[in-house]
Amino acid sequence: MSPKITTELLKQLRQVMKNPKYVQEPVQAYIVPSGDAHQSEYIAPCDCRRAFISGFDGSAGTAIVTEQHAAMWTDGRYFLQAAHQMDNNWTLMKMGLKDTPTQEDWLVSVLPEGSKVGVDPFIIPADQWKRMSKVLRSAGHDLVPVKENLINTIWTDCPQRPCKPLITLDLSYTGISWKDKIVALRSKMAERKVMWFVVTALDEVAWLFNLRGSDVEYNPVFFAYAVIGMNTIRLFIDGDRIMDPAVREHLQLDSTLEPEFKIQVMPYGSILSELQAVGAGLSPKEKVWLSDKASYALTEAIPKAYRYLTPYTPICVAKAVKNAAETEGMRRAHIKDAVALCELFNWLENEVPKGTVTEIIAADKAEEFRSQQKDFVELSFATISSTGPNGAIIHYKPVPETNRTLSVNEIYLLDSGAQYKDGTTDVTRTMHFGTPSAYEKECFTYVLKGHIAVSAAIFPNGTKGHLLDSFARSALWDCGLDYLHGTGHGVGSFLNVHEGPCGISYKTFADEPLEAGMIVSDEPGYYEDGSFGIRIENVVLVIPAETKYNFKNRGSLTFEPLTLVPIQTKMIDVHLLTEKECNWVNEYHQKCREVVGAELERQGRHEALRWLLRETEPLARVQ
Amino acid sequence: MSPKITTELLKQLRQVMKNPKYVQEPVQAYIVPSGDAHQSEYIAPCDCRRAFISGFDGSAGTAIVTEQHAAMWTDGRYFLQAAHQMDNNWTLMKMGLKDTPTQEDWLVSVLPEGSKVGVDPFIIPADQWKRMSKVLRSAGHDLVPVKENLINTIWTDCPQRPCKPLITLDLSYTGISWKDKIVALRSKMAERKVMWFVVTALDEVAWLFNLRGSDVEYNPVFFAYAVIGMNTIRLFIDGDRIMDPAVREHLQLDSTLEPEFKIQVMPYGSILSELQAVGAGLSPKEKVWLSDKASYALTEAIPKAYRYLTPYTPICVAKAVKNAAETEGMRRAHIKDAVALCELFNWLENEVPKGTVTEIIAADKAEEFRSQQKDFVELSFATISSTGPNGAIIHYKPVPETNRTLSVNEIYLLDSGAQYKDGTTDVTRTMHFGTPSAYEKECFTYVLKGHIAVSAAIFPNGTKGHLLDSFARSALWDCGLDYLHGTGHGVGSFLNVHEGPCGISYKTFADEPLEAGMIVSDEPGYYEDGSFGIRIENVVLVIPAETKYNFKNRGSLTFEPLTLVPIQTKMIDVHLLTEKECNWVNEYHQKCREVVGAELERQGRHEALRWLLRETEPLARVQ
Repeated sequence: MSPKITTELLKQLRQVMKNPKYVQEPVQAYIVPSGDAHQSEYIAPCDCRRAFISGFDGSAGTAIVTEQHAAMWTDGRYFLQAAHQMDNNWTLMKMGLKDTPTQEDWLVSVLPEGSKVGVDPFIIPADQWKRMSKVLRSAGHDLVPVKENLINTIWTDCPQRPCKPLITLDLSYTGISWKDKIVALRSKMAERKVMWFVVTALDEVAWLFNLRGSDVEYNPVFFAYAVIGMNTIRLFIDGDRIMDPAVREHLQLDSTLEPEFKIQVMPYGSILSELQAVGAGLSPKEKVWLSDKASYALTEAIPKAYRYLTPYTPICVAKAVKNAAETEGMRRAHIKDAVALCELFNWLENEVPKGTVTEIIAADKAEEFRSQQKDFVELSFATISSTGPNGAIIHYKPVPETNRTLSVNEIYLLDSGAQYKDGTTDVTRTMHFGTPSAYEKECFTYVLKGHIAVSAAIFPNGTKGHLLDSFARSALWDCGLDYLHGTGHGVGSFLNVHEGPCGISYKTFADEPLEAGMIVSDEPGYYEDGSFGIRIENVVLVIPAETKYNFKNRGSLTFEPLTLVPIQTKMIDVHLLTEKECNWVNEYHQKCREVVGAELERQGRHEALRWLLRETEPLARVQ
Repeated sequence: MSPKITTELLKQLRQVMKNPKYVQEPVQAYIVPSGDAHQSEYIAPCDCRRAFISGFDGSAGTAIVTEQHAAMWTDGRYFLQAAHQMDNNWTLMKMGLKDTPTQEDWLVSVLPEGSKVGVDPFIIPADQWKRMSKVLRSAGHDLVPVKENLINTIWTDCPQRPCKPLITLDLSYTGISWKDKIVALRSKMAERKVMWFVVTALDEVAWLFNLRGSDVEYNPVFFAYAVIGMNTIRLFIDGDRIMDPAVREHLQLDSTLEPEFKIQVMPYGSILSELQAVGAGLSPKEKVWLSDKASYALTEAIPKAYRYLTPYTPICVAKAVKNAAETEGMRRAHIKDAVALCELFNWLENEVPKGTVTEIIAADKAEEFRSQQKDFVELSFATISSTGPNGAIIHYKPVPETNRTLSVNEIYLLDSGAQYKDGTTDVTRTMHFGTPSAYEKECFTYVLKGHIAVSAAIFPNGTKGHLLDSFARSALWDCGLDYLHGTGHGVGSFLNVHEGPCGISYKTFADEPLEAGMIVSDEPGYYEDGSFGIRIENVVLVIPAETKYNFKNRGSLTFEPLTLVPIQTKMIDVHLLTEKECNWVNEYHQKCREVVGAELERQGRHEALRWLLRETEPLARVQ
């Protein structure tokens, strides 16, 4: 992977930063955040402005360009990738390391007195605006909204904003109608005494209306906003897609409806002016509920006294707790996904020794097997297919320049997942197709112990996921090892593979407590730069746990793995497992046999079934 | 314990809340925080205003009185005690429970529109003022400073503020001179580009000047402030005590000194006007460093643009990392403390079966044995001597009304500690003088497993203590049990038994990372209301850990117990321990034998030595 040469682009950007056509006054720094106007993690090509200006195309990162400097903040997952993709014009700011300054502190340290720092007010979340603006102001600088996006002014071949057809989901997938979701939302609004709710996150719009789209790769969402009043519903969406009869019927656009369920469809681009009109028409005590991560532009549309901002919206919280239909859908999706992976791993076992399988071929093969499964829609993220040293690049994606051939001498790490109409998957397995070294097995086994420690953990109702993070690290810590990423994230139901408000990470304190029905990933790892990467990831469902006692009647929770793909026993050093851990592996593999075995049988995939049976032979605990 | 009758007092308070002699405008609510003007946890009798108005005298709690209501916020340690000590005028607000409103939210819910909420600006920390004031303002109310403390206006027999003699500590105790501490502080100030540092916490003043006092029971501190400039030192302190020749020599008040080490002594009460003068004389860019927990009154003395506020001061952080002299002192103190406790437990074993030992007698006896040890100064907190159901009152202190007799049928919990001139101790042991039930042993063993999980934990340099909290709970969680307090707190060196900035608790996210030399407690527990309480507490020193590998060269840490008092093996269900845990107990007891045994021998305490040897017989692991 050779870095993008950005000298000319940075020169152009620095020119427009002073061009009165675009800025009222010259800005001495310009911030290019990662997100789009919906603060999405995955974005459409037209929104990849940070990648355009820097070359670094990982999922998280913020670029800041000043007259003298260009700097990129990203986290541990992307240190290597960013270093590879960016040229010498850029300084990499490694977030999470002790000596790395925050963006604000860095700006203060490099800017001349009284500087203006520009940013697109539609892209920057309001909470981030507030924090940055405060620090900058106290150091004598100003954060200023620049209406026209300055990257767009120099991005001559910027792609069009996508506007693809919609998919309607019926009750068998969603378990609850969009009307009932609106009713529940309005009741939450009434509880908090707010009159309006502004839906800005794309997955929240999709979830609320039981619609899906394909405007953004991997995330089945579509560009839209919604504004829900106590008696009105406004949906801001472009294109012919709303003319599709199936969509019109689903939304009952042409039916006679109770007025409070009548959806007014409006152009996507009119959200700001409509919201400003709402803002201007509020009577005292009429509050408007927005996510505190909504864009600064939309937040400013509502006068400060009328805003009701929360870190997590009621939709975000409701969406995280899956109902029976969604849970069953997720189970089905994970069984199909396991079938595809059994096929893949069986195929790899045969093909890798021939020396003809590259990372890209393996990733394509995984997609091919998945696409044979019922209700397959697309992948849920770019497949991380990495062997040897590439495995240590935590969010690696193989490209021709880096593409290695799988061999019997290197560890292979595959982190992949799919969108099925009934659910979203995300699974990582680390395999060796030859004979792993004792050290590789040792590291793998520590990671496995961490995975089991989380998966088998029992914890009180009301516990936040971040309190479980250290369980995943304890075995690694004992030997002086660790990994520089969180342990788990929320997973959507045929929606974004990363979603809030729950997760398992040492990095956050503001996650919502885990509750039965939530779905998260459990994915500890270990990475040795230049050598290999190990990660073991299951998607797990939060379920009630039976315990001997029940302190203060709080009840307890634990996890049930939804992912049912064998964990390579060849990589396990059984001596390092406790009896309990050994039993966990054997019971997990027994379940893979029963559930996935039956499906492989049903689909007539006999060779993959034989592979499954071989790979799930019980561990014999020595000692 | 019968509750304090507060009807008349509340009536008087509500009168002064409207009395123009004390308030510019009537206040509809008055907040009585726990602390003093230094935001101390332990306070002098003259500062016990919250206890005076409510009867509840636990170490943490905030009272709010409105025209209609009186409410008390406190945490899990004090739910039972507060309920016992307060009469029906008071509503107990159980912090940490899901449905308990914050003080601000509660105020908003009960106050008539446009209310004024009063508070003493010297008592409320600036960060709390800011938070409350914001919420109140957004709901149309006002937080207002009431100069005269309204409790003082009705507290006719309020005691005098103490002003006791000072103790000077030489280098053999402190390891570093006060001048070198000033130099280090000024270098931290220079790093942050601040010109002034205001020392407001009593333990920080004491630590900085290597002085101790006895103005506050249990905490060897004295009422004082200090303001450190780059070339000036101002110490605000009252009384003759500064005339003591030893103190004058220690501070070199009468010597010819480099001007930057010349201490100007000023009256305690002049801090506000002096600070206002500093504030008024600042040139641009001259910042003043204060804790964000300093009082609102002092913080307001510095114009906002000149304030540099941090959650932890450089003194707080420096004080937490003990140097070699302090660590050795702490070791010595803990050995002496163990000698006293071996004497006590041996004595209890003989006396309890006679039915003549009450909780108070046991506590007094513990103090008697401690006071026989060299350099004993006082207790480090009120001894928690509790048997049977009293053990479930987490911060119980025996008083005649509640005083139970120890028996061979109930669990006895003793949480106690002392101030020695060389160190501060804090130890909890839970014992049974008869035959514990299987259930009692089971619970004790889970608590022990949690204690060991923390004590033996290995974790990377830079890890914050809150990430270890769940280790202490895991064994309890597995069985549906838990405890409603944090797992550990920082411990001072002949200073406050509770100190920041480190600790081990699920409740905080803002603790500073643990580093070698820090000292914390490790004290998981289990409490069954109405039945018994179990807690096992050691003070432990953070030390470097040897690990097999060393990821990213970060280095690892672990804990070394400073407390060396046997853990009653009779209470342990050995079947529930892993081999590793069993070895931990045996190695710990072996160390108690060697180190404390030698000291008992040296002091000629042969009966206690025999008790120690009996109690530290190795566990034989069945299975």
